[in-house]
Amino acid sequence: MTTKTDAVTVLGLGEMGSAIARVFLERGYHTTIWNRTASKAAPLVEAGATAAPTAAEAVAASPLVVVCLLDGAAVDGVLSSIADTVQGKVLVNVTSGSPGQARANDRWAHEHGARYVDGKIMGDPPYVGTPNARFLFSGTAFGEHEEALRELGAVSYHGEEPGAAAVEFLAHVAMGYELLLGFLHTLKLVQAEGADVAGFAERFAASLTAYQPLLTSIAKAVENREYPPDLGPLDVQVALMDDLIGHRESAGVEAVRMRETKELMTRRIAEGHGGQGFSSVFELLS
Amino acid sequence: MTTKTDAVTVLGLGEMGSAIARVFLERGYHTTIWNRTASKAAPLVEAGATAAPTAAEAVAASPLVVVCLLDGAAVDGVLSSIADTVQGKVLVNVTSGSPGQARANDRWAHEHGARYVDGKIMGDPPYVGTPNARFLFSGTAFGEHEEALRELGAVSYHGEEPGAAAVEFLAHVAMGYELLLGFLHTLKLVQAEGADVAGFAERFAASLTAYQPLLTSIAKAVENREYPPDLGPLDVQVALMDDLIGHRESAGVEAVRMRETKELMTRRIAEGHGGQGFSSVFELLS
Ligand SMILES: NC(=O)c1ccc[n+]([C@@H]2O[C@H](COP(=O)([O-])OP(=O)(O)OC[C@H]3O[C@@H](n4cnc5c(N)ncnc54)[C@H](OP(=O)(O)O)[C@@H]3O)[C@@H](O)[C@H]2O)c1
Ligand SMILES: NC(=O)c1ccc[n+]([C@@H]2O[C@H](COP(=O)([O-])OP(=O)(O)OC[C@H]3O[C@@H](n4cnc5c(N)ncnc54)[C@H](OP(=O)(O)O)[C@@H]3O)[C@@H](O)[C@H]2O)c1
Repeated sequence: MTTKTDAVTVLGLGEMGSAIARVFLERGYHTTIWNRTASKAAPLVEAGATAAPTAAEAVAASPLVVVCLLDGAAVDGVLSSIADTVQGKVLVNVTSGSPGQARANDRWAHEHGARYVDGKIMGDPPYVGTPNARFLFSGTAFGEHEEALRELGAVSYHGEEPGAAAVEFLAHVAMGYELLLGFLHTLKLVQAEGADVAGFAERFAASLTAYQPLLTSIAKAVENREYPPDLGPLDVQVALMDDLIGHRESAGVEAVRMRETKELMTRRIAEGHGGQGFSSVFELLS
Repeated sequence: MTTKTDAVTVLGLGEMGSAIARVFLERGYHTTIWNRTASKAAPLVEAGATAAPTAAEAVAASPLVVVCLLDGAAVDGVLSSIADTVQGKVLVNVTSGSPGQARANDRWAHEHGARYVDGKIMGDPPYVGTPNARFLFSGTAFGEHEEALRELGAVSYHGEEPGAAAVEFLAHVAMGYELLLGFLHTLKLVQAEGADVAGFAERFAASLTAYQPLLTSIAKAVENREYPPDLGPLDVQVALMDDLIGHRESAGVEAVRMRETKELMTRRIAEGHGGQGFSSVFELLS
């Protein structure tokens, strides 16, 4: 069932919620807004939005309600205040959070006669409304107001399970921190050696595209449980690990992942898999 | 000083040394080879190379000597066996290893009347001789046989300090393991949630290009010690960390880097920098 709505409510007018409300306004939707700190509504009201005095009244104004708050705790608080007006609405929560929260919100919505869509956003607020903002959605009600949701950016749908968008989102976010924290530690190493930090960063950034086919082939190896030598066989890879670890230690740079890598490789080789690739250490992960 | 040589010696005929010797042969160089296990020379002799019975004799045959062995320990052993014939040669060691080893090899070469170039290889043996194999070099003698060295792939020169190529190399290798080990843990999470492993891998691989400008801007932030909100301000980023960590723990997936990220963010915010970006945690690294 697809309903074309021209009215939408946005709860939460931080950086992201304001950007969302602004895009709806610009695309011609009747936009009702609410924020805990009421003053943040002013610029949007000036641009044509209607500010409601309470979240409950804001929800009553539109069939589609988009919630964008700081975190799950904030969402819990606001949901309890809209329990009486949410019936019959489609509630789309794009606040960052866990699959568990998405599933709990979905249950809450059903208990209150509403339908639930979970959404997760990757991208900066200024990109909302452009393909550079990625919106991940899951939940059975996604199709109902799909057209409106597609105004917000590059939209992908991850299935009916309400937690699916959050699983995908948290996996991407985790990879971001893995990459960026590892990068900061490595910049420390480059800096400690007196080498060119900006030059290294540029060369490493340029090399990222070479990881693209490697990542997809590693995922294939993991799925098939067949581990061809990706970065060379483990027997050859492991020979470098002591140098790698020793170098970081001598420069006073942490080596947590390097020690873990060595330990996993060593165990895998001891089990007779020295001819396999790095991907084969997957078998040893908890 | 650039000398055009048409004779080169390769010590070490594993996967990589054999690929190097083969490229020199194919490009018309008189190629002398040696390997501890002599039988590995056979296919190259068939292709026109000259096998020497000892490393010392192989070294005597050419002005340019390329060493490609398993690791630094293997290099130490072979160097001691060529001490009497290395005088006047340019020794190019492309064995993976640390800056410390490169500097020690450089000293050894000078003590024995030879010049030293350190080299590090990124890429698989079949790519040697193509731009897909990257060769990093450092050391004052690089220019002497630059033309021959450029036969081997995409060559970059990292300066006169003998350890510079190894610094760059180890920084790249470390980033590879940071990325790939983090990726394996995250695939475990995706798999534990019953989500689509291959699909996630493809989407994450596609998203890597979005990290390219982020990495260079983070390096700039680190160099200038000015940390604009990159992934949003720390105040907003940190709100997600408990969900991220809790989700991984509930799925039985390790969360080492996630806990470290949270701890660093929290300390940075406590010091009054909640408006800065993720890059600002660099200030807290040892
Ligand atoms: N900013 C980004 O770059 C970005 C990118 C991707 C995803 N996101 C996600 O988008 C969501 C919103 O981020 P943002 O940048 O808009 O954050 P923000 O600018 O800090 O805004 C936070 C919003 O949450 C509200 N809020 C916080 N605690 C509340 C509570 N207990 N009760 C009611 N309202 C509460 C705030 O209301 P007050 O105005 O009253 O404080 C404000 O509207 C977050 O989940 C974030 O992870 C943000
Ligand atoms: N293969 C890759 O994908 C790749 C990529 C980038 C860099 N590299 C680097 O290239 C170097 C060589 O790798 P590879 O793939 O050629 O390894 P490999 O196939 O395992 O060959 C190792 C070579 O080292 C020799 N060796 C080992 N210990 C020795 C010792 N104590 N004394 C004398 N010789 C010894 C071996 O001689 P025997 O034949 O007698 O055992 C063989 O020639 C390594 O540093 C590696 O990290 C490799």
